[in-house]
Amino acid sequence: MDSSKASNSDKFFAIIPAGGVGSRLWPLSRASTPKFLHDLTGSGQTLLQDTWDRLTPVAENRKMIVTGDVHADLVAIQLPELDKSNLILEPSPKDSTAAIALAAAVLYARDSEVIIGSFAADHVIKDNDKFLAAISASIDLAASGRLVTIGIVPTEAAAAFGYIKKGSRILDTEGFEVAEFVEKPNIQTAKSFIATGHYLWNAGMYIAPAKLLLDVLSKTQPSLHAGVMELAKHWDTDQRAAKLEKIWPNLEKIAIDYAVAEPASQMGLMSVVPGDFEWHDVGDFAAIAELQSQGATNNLAVLGSAKVLSDSSSGILVSETNRLVALIGLEDVIVVDTPDALLVTTKEHAQKVKALVEALKQTGHSDLL
Amino acid sequence: MDSSKASNSDKFFAIIPAGGVGSRLWPLSRASTPKFLHDLTGSGQTLLQDTWDRLTPVAENRKMIVTGDVHADLVAIQLPELDKSNLILEPSPKDSTAAIALAAAVLYARDSEVIIGSFAADHVIKDNDKFLAAISASIDLAASGRLVTIGIVPTEAAAAFGYIKKGSRILDTEGFEVAEFVEKPNIQTAKSFIATGHYLWNAGMYIAPAKLLLDVLSKTQPSLHAGVMELAKHWDTDQRAAKLEKIWPNLEKIAIDYAVAEPASQMGLMSVVPGDFEWHDVGDFAAIAELQSQGATNNLAVLGSAKVLSDSSSGILVSETNRLVALIGLEDVIVVDTPDALLVTTKEHAQKVKALVEALKQTGHSDLL
Repeated sequence: MDSSKASNSDKFFAIIPAGGVGSRLWPLSRASTPKFLHDLTGSGQTLLQDTWDRLTPVAENRKMIVTGDVHADLVAIQLPELDKSNLILEPSPKDSTAAIALAAAVLYARDSEVIIGSFAADHVIKDNDKFLAAISASIDLAASGRLVTIGIVPTEAAAAFGYIKKGSRILDTEGFEVAEFVEKPNIQTAKSFIATGHYLWNAGMYIAPAKLLLDVLSKTQPSLHAGVMELAKHWDTDQRAAKLEKIWPNLEKIAIDYAVAEPASQMGLMSVVPGDFEWHDVGDFAAIAELQSQGATNNLAVLGSAKVLSDSSSGILVSETNRLVALIGLEDVIVVDTPDALLVTTKEHAQKVKALVEALKQTGHSDLL
Repeated sequence: MDSSKASNSDKFFAIIPAGGVGSRLWPLSRASTPKFLHDLTGSGQTLLQDTWDRLTPVAENRKMIVTGDVHADLVAIQLPELDKSNLILEPSPKDSTAAIALAAAVLYARDSEVIIGSFAADHVIKDNDKFLAAISASIDLAASGRLVTIGIVPTEAAAAFGYIKKGSRILDTEGFEVAEFVEKPNIQTAKSFIATGHYLWNAGMYIAPAKLLLDVLSKTQPSLHAGVMELAKHWDTDQRAAKLEKIWPNLEKIAIDYAVAEPASQMGLMSVVPGDFEWHDVGDFAAIAELQSQGATNNLAVLGSAKVLSDSSSGILVSETNRLVALIGLEDVIVVDTPDALLVTTKEHAQKVKALVEALKQTGHSDLL
């Protein structure tokens, strides 16, 4: 058993899709410098770097980044250890299935036994030992021929996440069958989920033999499957660019939850390993403020190098300038200070930043997106 | 009577003391660019320019500016019509008596019959016809050998201003004896003042024959009087700089209210002409916001050239940068955006900006003051 576990782990390769602008984090997060390229935790590292380091104990250097080709330079600077053969640059955004499936297909072409795990570049995880333990358990389940997701043990009735309903326990493992994936519920439904104890948050972490994931995709999205397989076949050749130019623009844009995870659960192939660790998708500035303040009130979190003078203000200040910022008597404020744009709002309205970004598009301020 | 009035007006010379940092308007107002050099009304002109223009109908070009020598260049740019012989540059701030008395002494040396009027460079006045009428009435009273102040007819029980208690009516004039000058009261006392109908706001506007003002000063502040008279004697000679260097540093720092107005009222020399016009000293950003919104609520006033995107925010945005400023769901907010400092607070806390500026001094940020 121990030796089989060790060999399972040897087959593991982590895929880190680094995409998504994070428009609720404007003006910090932009098309040119999306969320994952920023330090949103005050760790001194960006979310991408944190994600990279977090996976090292289980994946060592077997880590592949999938990102937009416009981010190639910044990613290379942030991850000097990244082997260029493990960097997939997308000519344009095609949602998560194309990104993850292409990475899986390339890795499968190199090693047909590979077990891949996909972990977003822009999430925050604490309790790394528990995270790694959940991955190890997931790898073992995957090695037995399953698609596995790590479901986060909820700490509150959140309406911002999708849920995974646990089915029956899989004997002699940490895993459960996935009874059902549930879209983001309203807050009442979320409360009823939490009360049952059967629901986990869907964090979009998938672990599976690359072959199995691609097999499911061949049934659910045959054209997308054919595209990534064709790309993978020529990936490590001088045909890569030509094939990308021809195939990539025509790939379906679809999230992997819909293309793979939900169909796999209906096929009885999907299992879930509960992850009892602190996880945040830091989707908006209110989430970052809460993460920073760790539940303390009357606390002003400061990210960045701003000189700050605060008189009884709480909330969060994010600064990318070296201006002095003076805050007086503000409650749960959000101030984001960048060289060409300033946002001031409150935690209550943090979600509305996305609509504001839409308004910017429509008022000819695309240069600021 | 008409011809005497006309000749009284011919003797009139307006003095505009342009001093005072206005620290409650930081970071807009700085030591290097104080309040009077800014457009705080959205008129397209600075307060100094508005003050200059406001006095033209009664003073024509007989206007003298007294300001710090560090402001000489900006004042000259803002007031191209200003004759350099009517610009008094102070080597250092010495409060209002030295400024006004030196101007009065210089004007007296040039014309012993001159009637001076002193009007701060950083106030806002609407209903200019009523303002000019009050000045004309004051000039006539002054010509009869009185010191005159224009007292503003109050529109509310304000605790932010000093008050003037009217005494008996001066026959055949618009004026009253000044019964008493009263320091800023608390709000209860202010309410009781308003209820009597006998009190006016002290706006610090003084009109008097220069000779009379200087005579009073010779009794109340003989050393200060001697200093400005000595300076005036050599002002229009090549001795000006040498005399300034010698005399100016030793002049008493005292407000003209204490050095002249209150003592004159005790001597029975002080009268007041009620001014029933809209007057604001725009002491803080809340005052500017109210001035801009003219009582409307849910209104966001914008001063400056900012690109603004506001979603249901009220208050005031003052911008000296061309950054995009996005405000979401903020009530009575104050945002002041300058190249090296950003202030965010609320109208409720507008007065606390002064304390913040003090804190800046004490934390080594004097470069930002």
